[in-house]
Amino acid sequence: MSTIVSVDTTDIRFPTSRQLDGSDAMNPDPDYSAAYLVIRTDANDGIEGHGFVFTIGRGNDVQVAAIRALSGYLVGRDTEELLADMGATWKMFAHDSQLRWLGPEKGVMHMAIGAVINALWDLRAKREGKPLWQLLAHLPPEEIVALVDFRYLSDALTRDEALEILHAARPGRAEREAQLVANGYPGYTTSPGWLGYSDEKLARLCREAIADGFGQIKLKVGGNLDDDIRRLGIAREACGEGFPIAIDANQRWDVAEAVEWVGALARFDIHWVEEPTSPDDILGHAAIARGIAPIPVATGEHVQNRIVFKQLLQVNAIGFMQIDAARVGGVNENIANLLLAAKFGVPVCPHAGGVGLCEAVQHLSMFDYVAVSGSQDGRVIEFVDHLHEHFVTPVVLNDGNYQAPLAPGAGTEMLAASIAEYTFSPGRTVAAV
Amino acid sequence: MSTIVSVDTTDIRFPTSRQLDGSDAMNPDPDYSAAYLVIRTDANDGIEGHGFVFTIGRGNDVQVAAIRALSGYLVGRDTEELLADMGATWKMFAHDSQLRWLGPEKGVMHMAIGAVINALWDLRAKREGKPLWQLLAHLPPEEIVALVDFRYLSDALTRDEALEILHAARPGRAEREAQLVANGYPGYTTSPGWLGYSDEKLARLCREAIADGFGQIKLKVGGNLDDDIRRLGIAREACGEGFPIAIDANQRWDVAEAVEWVGALARFDIHWVEEPTSPDDILGHAAIARGIAPIPVATGEHVQNRIVFKQLLQVNAIGFMQIDAARVGGVNENIANLLLAAKFGVPVCPHAGGVGLCEAVQHLSMFDYVAVSGSQDGRVIEFVDHLHEHFVTPVVLNDGNYQAPLAPGAGTEMLAASIAEYTFSPGRTVAAV
Repeated sequence: MSTIVSVDTTDIRFPTSRQLDGSDAMNPDPDYSAAYLVIRTDANDGIEGHGFVFTIGRGNDVQVAAIRALSGYLVGRDTEELLADMGATWKMFAHDSQLRWLGPEKGVMHMAIGAVINALWDLRAKREGKPLWQLLAHLPPEEIVALVDFRYLSDALTRDEALEILHAARPGRAEREAQLVANGYPGYTTSPGWLGYSDEKLARLCREAIADGFGQIKLKVGGNLDDDIRRLGIAREACGEGFPIAIDANQRWDVAEAVEWVGALARFDIHWVEEPTSPDDILGHAAIARGIAPIPVATGEHVQNRIVFKQLLQVNAIGFMQIDAARVGGVNENIANLLLAAKFGVPVCPHAGGVGLCEAVQHLSMFDYVAVSGSQDGRVIEFVDHLHEHFVTPVVLNDGNYQAPLAPGAGTEMLAASIAEYTFSPGRTVAAV
Repeated sequence: MSTIVSVDTTDIRFPTSRQLDGSDAMNPDPDYSAAYLVIRTDANDGIEGHGFVFTIGRGNDVQVAAIRALSGYLVGRDTEELLADMGATWKMFAHDSQLRWLGPEKGVMHMAIGAVINALWDLRAKREGKPLWQLLAHLPPEEIVALVDFRYLSDALTRDEALEILHAARPGRAEREAQLVANGYPGYTTSPGWLGYSDEKLARLCREAIADGFGQIKLKVGGNLDDDIRRLGIAREACGEGFPIAIDANQRWDVAEAVEWVGALARFDIHWVEEPTSPDDILGHAAIARGIAPIPVATGEHVQNRIVFKQLLQVNAIGFMQIDAARVGGVNENIANLLLAAKFGVPVCPHAGGVGLCEAVQHLSMFDYVAVSGSQDGRVIEFVDHLHEHFVTPVVLNDGNYQAPLAPGAGTEMLAASIAEYTFSPGRTVAAV
């Protein structure tokens, strides 16, 4: 028996805007940040639960306030009870009627719930001595579906259908786990393609990506069409015919503009078009998908919850689902998203980068491979080589593949020294208006 | 020339849960609250801009933090410049790339932007000596469309189409304004129908609503079907055949459940079914609308922005659009919503109640009547008789009609004494977890 004794929050900001790392058509000068929390118990085992929301600077203080507002649910509670039934714990947060008013299930409050849920999973995985992906993959199907809130999903995915998917994935599970530990999971890199980089840097980074073993790259587009044509030409020449190059507009376009712009780039053989328009525009994504076929649409890093993913799948709007570890209501809601994708036969290629997103989301893709979809076909995890050095168990890539993390936990713990060094105070200029 | 010198925020909470006022199937014990702001300038004219986000208790502090995070945009800025081009001012907030990450355009941060925008409109209307509805109605169509962000709308509504709608409404504008001032705008009441009320109280309040001149009532449903059948029978008997009775499920159902439940209530002649499911489920609303036709679906109090309203209209999911004064990005985004509704020929029947929502939203319906749709057909503004006494210019109803407010401003200013009395501090128990 142990009790949660504290929830500490920190506003962490890195001054990334100085290098134009992370610059795209909608986000010219991000300061990669984390609204961070640490859950501590009185178990005297030295184990803490760490979690965060990734933001890009201003407003990180609001996100911290939202996480802090949830601490009243945790402090003084029985740790084992909360961790043993994480489905009930998720509903305790997400179904709170008063907090729900602030969404429902979207934006600052929902992301705060996600961070707390993820920190609890980190705590549980460390206690069980397993990496999160393995903890989840070893759960019986009945326990996995108990983690999911099927409210608002039943017209597309019922609990029984989810159970069927999980039971169907049981054969070969041990072999896939062994294969995963031996070979890892394929990554792709966005590092060459930020809008702020010079043509020379773009070409060089494309060549380096291939030399590093990546099987796919991605370019930011949507700022200026002539620039995009020139940059895609450079990337295609550097990568060679047939090498998968995805493009990412970061919500820059309206529907007609997206169809027209992508049409002008289609000759470069586009692997996917990411975030062509507002993440809220389900019908817009579907219209764009029809307008640019056979080039597939991908989206998800800003998709607010499982209900929007459900609809994107229902109208065949996306050829790839891009879950994000810190956008929705945490691990539980992302399990719902993985099950929806499996039901509709759409590959999941997570969004990552930012602060700690690679470290966190790899666990979800690896769980998916072992226990849900059972496949790596068409599936890649985004990789951006930023800020990994601040994490206790940074991702390890080998010849373009994410190596399966074996350390206990969810990968979400930052180094104490990094937390201390990058704790933001309003007097610092990094994120001033 | 004047400068904004301060933005003061307050966490205001009323202990409404003690009376079960406002209780429904999803919100059993709301404490009606306002995350409130006051904008002051150095003009020495005694004029302040007041605005708020309505919440139902816990998390109101997070909403206050979000409003506070925006004050850096305002303090020290030229007042006249901000107020003269409110379209640019809206974009300054909504297009901030770093803040946008926290939504985009949804939840806590977007509602905070709405509160600030509304406070600026309150300031401008007071300075111009006009009630907000009249200020807006007297603007030339070109100035009105300049207030709207058409990003993500152009597949359904272009700037030129919006201009056409506004020009088409110009004939008869003066007559409608005179008619509005003389007779007001029809309201309907939700006061009889809260779930926590006894059958006797329900019947009595139905009779009182009719005696008070209301032409429509609304009942909360979705807790228990047998109760709903009994309560609707009581209401139908009290109101008589043909009297419009709407029902409101507050997002309680999944798609199939909604169709089935409403089917069991259809014999009571339902005027509309409000919030049958998640406000994010555009396709779900459309499926429900098809399943319960000819009973219309209504939604909007939790619709996060114009992009979701656009889609609800595109798929014929709603027969009534229920804008809310404090959910989206303020007056500007609600003008987009009114224009969308006019384009699709759907009547706007605003959500109100809460804290100050009646006071605020009446201006939008009245503007719509004079200058956008030009019609009151099928249109009613929700009325709940709660907490009006805390406002400087409380709504006035006469025989069930909202009287057109003539005092300068947006109606959003609370009494200083009420602000002081209901300022929340964590030591008070009203909204503890």
